[in-house]
Amino acid sequence: MDLSPLISLIEALGIGAFALSGVVEAKKKGMDFVGAFTAAFLTAFGGGTLRDLILDRHPLVWIGQPTYIAAVFLIALIASVRHALNGQLYAPGRLVDILDALGLGLFSAAGTSVALTSGAHPLVAIVMGVVTATFGGVLRDVICNEIPSIFRTSQLYATCALLGSIVYLLLRVTALGEAGASAAAIAAAAGLRLLALRHDIVLPF
Amino acid sequence: MDLSPLISLIEALGIGAFALSGVVEAKKKGMDFVGAFTAAFLTAFGGGTLRDLILDRHPLVWIGQPTYIAAVFLIALIASVRHALNGQLYAPGRLVDILDALGLGLFSAAGTSVALTSGAHPLVAIVMGVVTATFGGVLRDVICNEIPSIFRTSQLYATCALLGSIVYLLLRVTALGEAGASAAAIAAAAGLRLLALRHDIVLPF
Amino acid sequence: MDLSPLISLIEALGIGAFALSGVVEAKKKGMDFVGAFTAAFLTAFGGGTLRDLILDRHPLVWIGQPTYIAAVFLIALIASVRHALNGQLYAPGRLVDILDALGLGLFSAAGTSVALTSGAHPLVAIVMGVVTATFGGVLRDVICNEIPSIFRTSQLYATCALLGSIVYLLLRVTALGEAGASAAAIAAAAGLRLLALRHDIVLPF
Repeated sequence: MDLSPLISLIEALGIGAFALSGVVEAKKKGMDFVGAFTAAFLTAFGGGTLRDLILDRHPLVWIGQPTYIAAVFLIALIASVRHALNGQLYAPGRLVDILDALGLGLFSAAGTSVALTSGAHPLVAIVMGVVTATFGGVLRDVICNEIPSIFRTSQLYATCALLGSIVYLLLRVTALGEAGASAAAIAAAAGLRLLALRHDIVLPF
Repeated sequence: MDLSPLISLIEALGIGAFALSGVVEAKKKGMDFVGAFTAAFLTAFGGGTLRDLILDRHPLVWIGQPTYIAAVFLIALIASVRHALNGQLYAPGRLVDILDALGLGLFSAAGTSVALTSGAHPLVAIVMGVVTATFGGVLRDVICNEIPSIFRTSQLYATCALLGSIVYLLLRVTALGEAGASAAAIAAAAGLRLLALRHDIVLPF
Repeated sequence: MDLSPLISLIEALGIGAFALSGVVEAKKKGMDFVGAFTAAFLTAFGGGTLRDLILDRHPLVWIGQPTYIAAVFLIALIASVRHALNGQLYAPGRLVDILDALGLGLFSAAGTSVALTSGAHPLVAIVMGVVTATFGGVLRDVICNEIPSIFRTSQLYATCALLGSIVYLLLRVTALGEAGASAAAIAAAAGLRLLALRHDIVLPF
C-alpha cells in the first residue's frame, strides 16, 4: 500500500493547523495582519527551517514551495479579516486539535528522517525530530512575548514529538519501511497527544 | 546617470538610523552599553543576516565590513555615554524618520535583489525583501522583551517594505535597470512610510 | 607543558555550569522538564551554534558530541526531579560561579580562535568570541521571557568575554601558542569576572 499521498495530505493539513494556531495567538495579542502572517509563517515553517539551518540543508523546505507560502498568507488574511469584521477567531477546536496532532507526529518523523539521512547520530536525530515538530510554536510564542507554551504545563506536546521520533527511529529499518514507520510514528504521537488533551495529562516535573 | 554612489550613501545612512533606533530602545529598557551595542547591531544587521542564512549566502554581509561594525559600535558608545551624562537620548525625530524610511526602502529592494540572484521564486524574493528590511527591528524588540512594534499598530512599516520589494521586482527588468529600480523602490517605500507617519495611518486589520 | 587535557576539562565543566544555569532559570519560571532541558541546551550550546551558523562551519559543534547532549539531558533531568521532590534548586553558588567564569573565558578564546581560522577580520573575530561565550545565556533569557541579564546590570559578564577574546587575539602569535593564549584568556576573563562578582562591579553606562 502506497502511503505517500496520505502523508502529503497530512503534511498539508498539519501546516494549515500550525498556521492557524499562529494567527490565533497573534490576534489574542492584538497584532495586525503583518503580525498574524509572520506568526503563522513561523509556526508553520519555523521548526523545519531551524532543523535545516542546523543540518546545513539548502534550499530550505519552504523556499521551493511558493504554494504553501501563498496558502499560509491566505489563512492569515482570511482569519484576520474575519476577526476584524466580527471579532471572532477560529478558536482551536476539536478538529484543529486533531490536525495539529497529526502534523506533530508527521513533522517529528520527518525531522528524524532528514537528520538520519544527513548522517546524524541517532541521539541528534531524535533532537532534530522534536525541534522540527515543536520549534515553530516556540518561535510563535517568542514573538508573541510569551514563555513558550510547550515549556509550561502543555499536555505532553514535546513528549509526543519525542515519542514520534523514537517510534520512527526504531521502525524505519523494519519491514514497515519509511512510509510505514512514519505512519506508526504519526499514530503514536497523535494518539498520545489526543489522549493527553482529553484527560489533561501533563508532565509530573 | 550612475546611481550607485547615492545608493551607497543611503545604505550608510540607513544603517546608522537603524543602529540608533536600537540604542534608543535598549536605553528605554534600562540596558547598559553591552545591551545598547547588541540592540544596535541586531537592528542594523539582523535582517540581512537572517536573509543570508536562509539563502545560504556566505560570508554574511557584515563579516566583510569591519568599518560598519566599528561605526555601529561608536554610535552605541556615544549615545550611551551621552545618556549616562545628561539622561538624554537621541530621540527619533524627523531626520531619523527620513533616514530610517530611506533605509527601509533600500533594504527591501536589496533583499529582493539578492534573493532573485540566488534563483528564488518571485514570491520568496518578496518575502526576503520584507525580512531584510524589517527583521532587524523584530530581533531588537525580541531582546528588549517587547512584542515587535511592526506587528502592532505601526504606521505601515512592513507594508512599505512590501511595496518596495514589489516595485523593485516589477521594474528591474525594465529600462530602469538595477539602480533605477532600487531608486524607485526607495522612493515608493520611503514616500508611503513618511505619509503614514504624518497622518498616522495603520492597517485596518 | 601540554595544556590540552586541562582545556578539555574546563570545556566539560563550563558546559555543565552553563547547562545548570539554564535549568535554574527555567525552574524559576515554572517550566517543566521540556523547558528545563531546552533552556539547558540553549545555554550550553547556543553561543557556539550561533557562531558556527554565522561563519558557515558545519557540522555544528554539538552535532558530533552526543555525549555532551546526554550529559546536558542528565543535568536537566536530575535537577528537575530534585526540584519536584523537595522544591530545591541547585542555586548558583560559589563553585558554579567559578566553573561558569572559567567556561566564559574558554568559550571567548575558542570563539575567537575559530573565527580567525575561518579567515575573519580580527574585529569580527572578537565579536565572535563574545557571541560564543555569551549568546547561550541570551537565548536562555529570551525563551524565559526576560530581558537578557547580560544587557542589564550584570557584573561585567560580556566585558569579561571581550577581555578574554582580546587577550587570546594578542597572545596567540607569541611564544605562548594556542594553548598558552587560551590559558591566559581564561585566567584574565575568569579573574575579572570573579572580581566583579565579589565587589559587585557593573558598567558605569
